[in-house]
Amino acid sequence: MPNFAIIGAGAMGSAVAKRLIEHGATVLTCLEGRSEQTIVRAKTAGMVPVGRQELTEAELILSIVPPAEAMKVAELVADISAKTPAPPFIDLNAIAPKTMQALAAQFDGSGTTVLDGAIIGGPPVAGKSGPTIYISGDAAERSRLLEDCGLQVRRLDGSLGAASALKMCYAGINKGFIGLGAAMLLAASRSGAAESLKAELAESLPDVDRKLSKSIPDMYPKAYRWVAEMQEIADFLGEDDPAATIFQGMADLFSRLAADVEGSRTLVRQLDEIQTPSETGAMVMP
Amino acid sequence: MPNFAIIGAGAMGSAVAKRLIEHGATVLTCLEGRSEQTIVRAKTAGMVPVGRQELTEAELILSIVPPAEAMKVAELVADISAKTPAPPFIDLNAIAPKTMQALAAQFDGSGTTVLDGAIIGGPPVAGKSGPTIYISGDAAERSRLLEDCGLQVRRLDGSLGAASALKMCYAGINKGFIGLGAAMLLAASRSGAAESLKAELAESLPDVDRKLSKSIPDMYPKAYRWVAEMQEIADFLGEDDPAATIFQGMADLFSRLAADVEGSRTLVRQLDEIQTPSETGAMVMP
Repeated sequence: MPNFAIIGAGAMGSAVAKRLIEHGATVLTCLEGRSEQTIVRAKTAGMVPVGRQELTEAELILSIVPPAEAMKVAELVADISAKTPAPPFIDLNAIAPKTMQALAAQFDGSGTTVLDGAIIGGPPVAGKSGPTIYISGDAAERSRLLEDCGLQVRRLDGSLGAASALKMCYAGINKGFIGLGAAMLLAASRSGAAESLKAELAESLPDVDRKLSKSIPDMYPKAYRWVAEMQEIADFLGEDDPAATIFQGMADLFSRLAADVEGSRTLVRQLDEIQTPSETGAMVMP
Repeated sequence: MPNFAIIGAGAMGSAVAKRLIEHGATVLTCLEGRSEQTIVRAKTAGMVPVGRQELTEAELILSIVPPAEAMKVAELVADISAKTPAPPFIDLNAIAPKTMQALAAQFDGSGTTVLDGAIIGGPPVAGKSGPTIYISGDAAERSRLLEDCGLQVRRLDGSLGAASALKMCYAGINKGFIGLGAAMLLAASRSGAAESLKAELAESLPDVDRKLSKSIPDMYPKAYRWVAEMQEIADFLGEDDPAATIFQGMADLFSRLAADVEGSRTLVRQLDEIQTPSETGAMVMP
């Protein structure tokens, strides 16, 4: 069975590793300088810690990290690839197509194949086929190995960057919507309109109400990662598109939320209170 | 039966008038300087054109206009109220609470009651109870007259501005979402990812896909009105809230869309093409 290397043992990286391992693969990773929590998560998933140079012994190297770290990981892989012939490298992170191209350019002249990937959906869980892994620039179907080991893969016809573009657009809608919801629920809370807003949403937009009730609490621990992702979306849209400003605002919003999650949790409490209003009328304007 | 005056005979104003008239009311309006289209719409709805001063003969004066015109209408009503004792004035427009307060301040000293209202939902249609008309600052229940004539009214406990705040939050989520969807579908179209985005949305976020398919085409003729509404939402959020930037971007986005709707319709065509992809693969990147 094939060997993979995965750089990044976060919630997504470790769950992807687990899925591959369950299908008989060996998954190498490099844990140099990682936190105790990450080391435990990697080992629990069954990942095999190796030195950075040994990552090249895999048949595919995957990068699954927060978008702000994607370039640093590519630098590391380009560095080890310069010393030993390396397998194809797939960046699976939420980055703009231009960032993807800059990232691939680090491998120029190394002979290493670089593929553009994107993960849509949450981490793999037992009994579900998702998430979907989109790959572009993969004429030789090097990503087939992932399919052979239990992952759902879709190859896109477009060139390098097409998978990243798809991810930007999807995340812009999906995560952007969560940002809009959080921002407006907080504003309603500040202005004493939370209770009536929640009631009106439940009545006239029940789908929206349900989605926000679930997605906003799920967002708290991820908000810090979404800051760079929103900046990537703004870069993707480009200065000429007025929507780039929307995502600059989203980045700032998630940055504030991330600071709150790590800090006083004042905003988190306000959001939680709206989602589960008390019976004593806690929503009434002070 | 009561007399109302409605300033504004757009899609919403004329449909609200029609509902009131069907319940036996007389609805006065002032058509001085209005377009031929507006005059026809008002007369079709059964509204009675009068001179501006005669509007004070109604038992309630309602303002139902695009948000950018709300202040001008209030000035007009304040002006006629200064000459003749006037009935309560209800602003039903999508404006920020601060704008509402500035608008109400124009009536200071006139003795005219000013109420803050907001309409949530589309124009009244036969057989449906909506939209909901929220009213705040109405301790004397002057808005009960509207309920007596077939409209669904909810009075909010908050002071003047509470209904406007609710409207800002609701519109921020609902219209903001349509803006996000349009922006990302256009970006997908530019980068050759439209077809895969549409397929992924249909599969993993079918509610979102359905809502965008319906709401985006419905938005075209309203985009020009939403520009000022998004600016009102940015003002409502205030400079200290990073989400204000989101809505400044939204205002610019809808401004570009509105110009396109009136002009070359290039963006409209792109959006339509994504919603109904041709069988010949029109989505392929040029």
